[in-house]
Amino acid sequence: MSRSRQFRLAARPEGEIKDSDFELVTAPIPEPAENEFVIETTHISIDPAMRGWMSAARSYIPPVKIGEVMRALAVGRVIASHHPEFAPGDWVHGPFGVQEHAVSNGQDAYKIMVTGPLTPAAYLGVLGLTGLTAYFGLLDVGRLSNGDTVLVSGAAGGVGTAAGQIAKIKGATAVGIAGAPEKCRMLIEELGFDGAVDYKRSDLRVQLHKQTPDRVDVFFDNVGGEVLDEGLTRLRRGARVVICGAVSQYNASGPVAGPANYMALLVSRASMTGFVVFDFASRYQQAIRELSGWVSQGRLRSVEDTAPGDIEMFPSMLARLFTGQNTGKLALELRP
Amino acid sequence: MSRSRQFRLAARPEGEIKDSDFELVTAPIPEPAENEFVIETTHISIDPAMRGWMSAARSYIPPVKIGEVMRALAVGRVIASHHPEFAPGDWVHGPFGVQEHAVSNGQDAYKIMVTGPLTPAAYLGVLGLTGLTAYFGLLDVGRLSNGDTVLVSGAAGGVGTAAGQIAKIKGATAVGIAGAPEKCRMLIEELGFDGAVDYKRSDLRVQLHKQTPDRVDVFFDNVGGEVLDEGLTRLRRGARVVICGAVSQYNASGPVAGPANYMALLVSRASMTGFVVFDFASRYQQAIRELSGWVSQGRLRSVEDTAPGDIEMFPSMLARLFTGQNTGKLALELRP
Repeated sequence: MSRSRQFRLAARPEGEIKDSDFELVTAPIPEPAENEFVIETTHISIDPAMRGWMSAARSYIPPVKIGEVMRALAVGRVIASHHPEFAPGDWVHGPFGVQEHAVSNGQDAYKIMVTGPLTPAAYLGVLGLTGLTAYFGLLDVGRLSNGDTVLVSGAAGGVGTAAGQIAKIKGATAVGIAGAPEKCRMLIEELGFDGAVDYKRSDLRVQLHKQTPDRVDVFFDNVGGEVLDEGLTRLRRGARVVICGAVSQYNASGPVAGPANYMALLVSRASMTGFVVFDFASRYQQAIRELSGWVSQGRLRSVEDTAPGDIEMFPSMLARLFTGQNTGKLALELRP
Repeated sequence: MSRSRQFRLAARPEGEIKDSDFELVTAPIPEPAENEFVIETTHISIDPAMRGWMSAARSYIPPVKIGEVMRALAVGRVIASHHPEFAPGDWVHGPFGVQEHAVSNGQDAYKIMVTGPLTPAAYLGVLGLTGLTAYFGLLDVGRLSNGDTVLVSGAAGGVGTAAGQIAKIKGATAVGIAGAPEKCRMLIEELGFDGAVDYKRSDLRVQLHKQTPDRVDVFFDNVGGEVLDEGLTRLRRGARVVICGAVSQYNASGPVAGPANYMALLVSRASMTGFVVFDFASRYQQAIRELSGWVSQGRLRSVEDTAPGDIEMFPSMLARLFTGQNTGKLALELRP
């Protein structure tokens, strides 16, 4: 294969993502210049944040420009290098974009050690930004303490499965909110959550009350909308609400639903804080060491929804992310 | 006058407060028992929080019971005492309720020094919970720093006028949001605010943008609703949103409007924190000393909307608070 395919952003989506928002372009495999290397992509991370990167609205990072390769984190192997620190065969994690091959000068890229449960896909999951987001969101932004009760929404997703397990490792009680009975079972039986709530049932408030009888110290919200609003009714005094995302709202073309119960923050002397994991970059390596240790000890599972296939599957996989069908970290595994 | 009148809570309001939510009762003037004193009320504080105290919903303080004297802060003079620390003639501040006379064992009551600009009404304004709310909300919850830009909503109210002036004393830029051109003029010309925005004009967003070109470090919100939502669009990175109240929403009988722009917290790595001034009680006396000093030096004005009159005016004055007609701290001054 001497040619390489890539998806470029063709249009800014309105409402749901459409195939026509992307353009598939075929180009020659790039050659590395001095201090550059080329990777062959093996796994492309599919993230809720991509919806925001496609939008022109003010955000924490500039939007992808029309005509640019779609931004994505990926894992791959070096196939050619003129860079002193990267050699052919090395496994590398980096912001390589939605493409079969990428050239890099090493910026924001790092070598990964693939062995046993430390799989390439895990480096997009609990050992990548997904796990780091859960780690810093829970421990730094949420100031988790031993004995706290943690409520996680989007609990069956990549960040959610990591957040609940990290909460347990840190001595907290973990309750998840997910969108199907089998997801709720998985959280409790496979990942050790103490409780789970199915938000698609009509009695969300009753279930939440039952699963958090002593209320909640940290509410880690990935979802927004009604789930955020109901979670706010369960805050304990001094609670911390961590705003990690709002996957239920990203495709909204009309006005976003704000949390009507936000005055619970006053009643409970609570805070609601947004964060962006990139701000913790100086501590990534230390955190990945700790996360890798937990994975190697079998205390932290990387839950992945990895579809092996072809890069052409990317737009439909990304659209699927917003339907709530995936369990764990969604990634596209490229099979050459 | 050997008899005394008091308002008791007769019904929990739905939507706007009605006269029939209160019952005016006449009783003998109480006699103090051992370790008690009796005050004749001179000023009754009229506060937005009263709407919440009348409601049965979970809050930071138990609701007033049906049949109980309506809760209120007040200032008065001791007319009889069997308490070692309070003597006839002393001016006293305390939670004396909406009544012409109150008996107290001294709990939560303290003597005040009435002299010059330190008037009885000021002790319900900048020298009372109103000023303390602005003080702790801005300095502790909002972590105000020299050079910050502070946006205050409900800026022409009791807490708002105090918050903007304290921001200026602390070296910040203060921009207020109020509901009339003459209020905006007052904020700038009489209280030293750097800018003011009239939320009743149709171009709220444009005005806000113009008045906060470098965005906002602390957003002190008393209002909720659209004003909160628009203010969220102006957050600087690391901003603190202080949730002090939501006066625009207290009378809503339908669902409260949540802040649709809350994801600005993520984009700006900002926090939104609720607080209740009672939690700072151990520091009241120290703060009142500092506030009194600023008042005595002419650096902090107690802006009051004090109507002299009869206790019978209480229900209509309270209802007026939610129409946005008052400027500064609303209080009822009883003229015997």
